[in-house]
Amino acid sequence: MTAITFSDISALRSACLTPSHADMAVIERITARDATLTKPPGSLGRLEELTRWLGGWQRRPTPTLERVQCVVFAGNHGIVARGVSAWPPEVTTLMVRNFHNGGAAINQLSACAGASLSIVEMENLQPTADFTQAPAMDEATFLHCVNTGAAAVDPKSDLLCVGEMGIGNTTVAAALAAGLFGGTGREWAGPGAGSDDASMVRKIDVINDGLNTHRAVLDDPLAVAQCLGGHEMAAMLGAVIAARSLNIPVMLDGYVSTAAVAPLYALHAEGLAHCRIGHNSAEPGHARLTAKLGQKALLDFGLRLGEGSGAALVVPLLRAAIACHNGMHTFTDAGIGN
Amino acid sequence: MTAITFSDISALRSACLTPSHADMAVIERITARDATLTKPPGSLGRLEELTRWLGGWQRRPTPTLERVQCVVFAGNHGIVARGVSAWPPEVTTLMVRNFHNGGAAINQLSACAGASLSIVEMENLQPTADFTQAPAMDEATFLHCVNTGAAAVDPKSDLLCVGEMGIGNTTVAAALAAGLFGGTGREWAGPGAGSDDASMVRKIDVINDGLNTHRAVLDDPLAVAQCLGGHEMAAMLGAVIAARSLNIPVMLDGYVSTAAVAPLYALHAEGLAHCRIGHNSAEPGHARLTAKLGQKALLDFGLRLGEGSGAALVVPLLRAAIACHNGMHTFTDAGIGN
Repeated sequence: MTAITFSDISALRSACLTPSHADMAVIERITARDATLTKPPGSLGRLEELTRWLGGWQRRPTPTLERVQCVVFAGNHGIVARGVSAWPPEVTTLMVRNFHNGGAAINQLSACAGASLSIVEMENLQPTADFTQAPAMDEATFLHCVNTGAAAVDPKSDLLCVGEMGIGNTTVAAALAAGLFGGTGREWAGPGAGSDDASMVRKIDVINDGLNTHRAVLDDPLAVAQCLGGHEMAAMLGAVIAARSLNIPVMLDGYVSTAAVAPLYALHAEGLAHCRIGHNSAEPGHARLTAKLGQKALLDFGLRLGEGSGAALVVPLLRAAIACHNGMHTFTDAGIGN
Repeated sequence: MTAITFSDISALRSACLTPSHADMAVIERITARDATLTKPPGSLGRLEELTRWLGGWQRRPTPTLERVQCVVFAGNHGIVARGVSAWPPEVTTLMVRNFHNGGAAINQLSACAGASLSIVEMENLQPTADFTQAPAMDEATFLHCVNTGAAAVDPKSDLLCVGEMGIGNTTVAAALAAGLFGGTGREWAGPGAGSDDASMVRKIDVINDGLNTHRAVLDDPLAVAQCLGGHEMAAMLGAVIAARSLNIPVMLDGYVSTAAVAPLYALHAEGLAHCRIGHNSAEPGHARLTAKLGQKALLDFGLRLGEGSGAALVVPLLRAAIACHNGMHTFTDAGIGN
């Protein structure tokens, strides 16, 4: 398998509108084996569902997690000039350096997950345009970022964890969510990496201004991603649609990664069926967005860091799920009549 | 350190009434270091709390999980003769064999957790008395089971995960919870490993009969544990009080293990401060009991298996917590001004 590339927006749109299905025959085999294992039926709860999900997308009745990839996309945002964040955009650069030096949370968490870690700097960390004034990206840049994200996916991965770093991107996430699902800045904005009351007001205003500037395109989810999104958000969208083509299940992180790929759901109700959401972010918009997508996060630990932290964190739970499924003995093995 | 033994019930009661404190100086050191790490303050949410908890009880500013012990106590219950379970008591024996053969969920999950697994058969798997007719155990047997549990704890453990196997013991857990915190069988009983409507009615009646038989002692938590509990429940209580003396934090599993140690909370509001609850069981009484204890389970995966499964499952989340705390670089290291 080779990496996925989209030649133009209509090729991308076409891929989004025709997502592949999970392998139902594999899911039936997993369900049938599960019923023979030495436990009351259903007693491993969500672990059983996660095994079916992994196997159905990997198209393997014995799901595996030998090769897990975490990718963190980093980008900067024009709207930071509007004072929406407590941190300057230079922190994006410094945190990328920190990733390369092994010093960030995601370095520790990807190691705990037994995962590789890839860091991708989008557009040399140059900011997008201020979306209150113009589209965040032109169409060519958007497509390029989508393709950069798609190309970052190791086609041999058993699982992809996506994360991001980008000062200001909880504001962008809120704008995307509002653009796709309706509502205003007040309903989707949160404190992010630490906003005081004044910057919360600015955040809400910036989101509402962005929605107003781009109101003509809000019925087109890819245009929403281009006009209100960011370089690293477009890359996550590209990585996740590529993973679908490559039979790779995806673990999303928190608010920003979920919002970045939400256009895939807006384009097709099954567009995120190969994804799960690692955790419910402390950012209040995330629970609302998760519910809109018909998902339930695995963990509720009050994280609000990004970097893919909540995606990597839950990988050991998936390892536990498949270890039970693949390793447990059957009632027949154990001499227990049913 | 040597294993803990209680010479008589009053020695046990005294230990329960005078629990040790966490090391506040260690917790302050952990909190101070946490504030220097390359993340917004508080952004690792519950991972930060878990690191303080582990360090405070281990009395180490750099908490470790090199030596994690899972102990599964197995026992049988007189009330099973009353038809409260869909499974016969022989299944307890067969599941113990399954544990020794490596075929159960807890074998896979303890391996994923990097934990040792100890299996302790209580009282040769002979059942307790039917608690609707008499105390489940006499005082000497109760004390012996407590001491068996205490002796099973490896004094060098960094973390203890407790679990159980015992056909009928969700009924016993419900009786314990009702005996300690009030309410009737209807409020505390659930389907357990799979009860139909008729056995649910029997379960509720059995619990109410037990509460009525022992109503004179319901103000004494240790007497409740003796009269309405079980051999494996007494052992879990013993293991958890011993762990407190040995500076070992404890991860509880689901309804049965939480109910088994709830007398420690009833005896002292800080009696379970060294414990966390791994998951919120699908057994409906568990959420209610968890709230009574002022705790919040780490995971909500709909498990209802026992065996310590939900305790072992979350150990990698603790490993992630301490990996972040111990491994992340500081803002100063990363050249990020605050």
